Amino acid sequence: MTRLRVPVPLRWADLDAYGHVNNVEVLRLLEEARIAAFWRHPEAHEAWPTALLDAGPGAPTHTLVARQEIEYLLPLGYRREPVVVEMWIGHLGGASIDVCYEVTATADGERVVYVRAQTTLVLVDAATARPRRIAEAERTAWRPYLGEPVAMRRRPAG
Amino acid sequence: MTRLRVPVPLRWADLDAYGHVNNVEVLRLLEEARIAAFWRHPEAHEAWPTALLDAGPGAPTHTLVARQEIEYLLPLGYRREPVVVEMWIGHLGGASIDVCYEVTATADGERVVYVRAQTTLVLVDAATARPRRIAEAERTAWRPYLGEPVAMRRRPAG
Amino acid sequence: MTRLRVPVPLRWADLDAYGHVNNVEVLRLLEEARIAAFWRHPEAHEAWPTALLDAGPGAPTHTLVARQEIEYLLPLGYRREPVVVEMWIGHLGGASIDVCYEVTATADGERVVYVRAQTTLVLVDAATARPRRIAEAERTAWRPYLGEPVAMRRRPAG
Amino acid sequence: MTRLRVPVPLRWADLDAYGHVNNVEVLRLLEEARIAAFWRHPEAHEAWPTALLDAGPGAPTHTLVARQEIEYLLPLGYRREPVVVEMWIGHLGGASIDVCYEVTATADGERVVYVRAQTTLVLVDAATARPRRIAEAERTAWRPYLGEPVAMRRRPAG
Repeated sequence: MTRLRVPVPLRWADLDAYGHVNNVEVLRLLEEARIAAFWRHPEAHEAWPTALLDAGPGAPTHTLVARQEIEYLLPLGYRREPVVVEMWIGHLGGASIDVCYEVTATADGERVVYVRAQTTLVLVDAATARPRRIAEAERTAWRPYLGEPVAMRRRPAG
Repeated sequence: MTRLRVPVPLRWADLDAYGHVNNVEVLRLLEEARIAAFWRHPEAHEAWPTALLDAGPGAPTHTLVARQEIEYLLPLGYRREPVVVEMWIGHLGGASIDVCYEVTATADGERVVYVRAQTTLVLVDAATARPRRIAEAERTAWRPYLGEPVAMRRRPAG
Repeated sequence: MTRLRVPVPLRWADLDAYGHVNNVEVLRLLEEARIAAFWRHPEAHEAWPTALLDAGPGAPTHTLVARQEIEYLLPLGYRREPVVVEMWIGHLGGASIDVCYEVTATADGERVVYVRAQTTLVLVDAATARPRRIAEAERTAWRPYLGEPVAMRRRPAG
Repeated sequence: MTRLRVPVPLRWADLDAYGHVNNVEVLRLLEEARIAAFWRHPEAHEAWPTALLDAGPGAPTHTLVARQEIEYLLPLGYRREPVVVEMWIGHLGGASIDVCYEVTATADGERVVYVRAQTTLVLVDAATARPRRIAEAERTAWRPYLGEPVAMRRRPAG
């Protein structure tokens, strides 16, 4: 299983008054990485073999977020070099994808994991607003990135 | 078990290019509701019996978000009247709280649930950066809001 | 000349790592106030006599921001009570409005001005993407709020 | 006079419900460019000769924004390649800098200017919260970027 590695630059405005990247903004970084990895763009099939989705406003497919789960392992401070969002697919459903992430940065020369997360995306036909099946070309492009769902450290009993 | 009901006004900027409140901004609404409900302010003990935490920058306690889980049931459009974030406590640990939420709004005269979520907060001593135990006064103030953890509709097998 | 007074609640996330409402977020507060004051909503003609614009995505008119000028007089800290954005119209052009603002809050029982600003809005026909003339009904509703442009403290020679 | 050219990646979340980079978020792009250009970082004196300011929370200097002026020439849509914020200094005061900007992107192979802006920054001693004079080393580093203030297209009579 291969991981997608998407560099995402922080912004100073991602910090909150505690001086750390705000817990909500961390999900913004995941959104940026997801768009880079899955939404169609000119370099797709080369640098970004997974970037097939003709999504975004006006496009035939919308990607709705149905569910997210996120674990903050370490506080993330501001840095100029981008963090690297490592991504893979934990599950390929009929019309949905579970995207798994580890947000990493280099500290003292070592790869450190700051965040683990998972997002369930549903592909929606923009015209009918109903879920649409994952196409064969998409399934083929995404299968090499299919792996075990991200292992969360703890999960409440609920 | 009593629920806290915190009205949170939307902002137009919460909308993304799809015209819905962005999935990330929904967590911003939860953050606002949490601060209103738990951080100390002058009206605490009266309108906000739970608002005891002397948190925020410069205060003796920091509240770190350790984990979040969120389910988006329906897309949320812009409206002028605030949404109501209903909150309760799903678990009171030694130094942590599981805050549960339903984000609701009135549609056609009925209460509709748009989002279900849960956040694990850890109370941290600002001086030592280590978890600190929930004080007896806090436990007493929060206990009436202790209930079953929020029931998520689906959760991946992982 | 009458001023519109729009209360706008702060969010904790408006603070940056300096612990003040971030200079960019101040413009967000102005945007919120402007939408409340000028975009059509059910209570228009009563509480909000100026709120006539059928704007927003999908509406016949878009309001484009052509220009902004803002002066930060005092740093604005977090507070639970909304700030009050006082607004009036500094100029009514053929297809444009200059909206003037003072962002105020109460400190020690006194009204304090934190920010002065001015925005030039252009009304655009959503179908043709060209400026459209201010209608007579709009002009009539807005004229009572027409006054002197906001007096900036300093302006570079440029 | 030399211009600083700072590439700033857009985020999808910079778009508002109109599908353009929101007018407020444009100022966020300026903030990012300013921090890259002026705040001290390891590569300063080489790639970033101007990046001398030991600013940011906890640092001896705070940079307060006293004033901003911005003109939106063309709507800016989402693009994957960064926009280039071209910057220079319009005025070097005793304790203040006027930073001038043109936000540019390449369209059909040509450099297009989308935004013109100017920010007055005041250097503040973090300990005393009072303006502090620009140091000689700073003045020397910044002087090559000193030029005519940005020419705005229109400015209200007020």
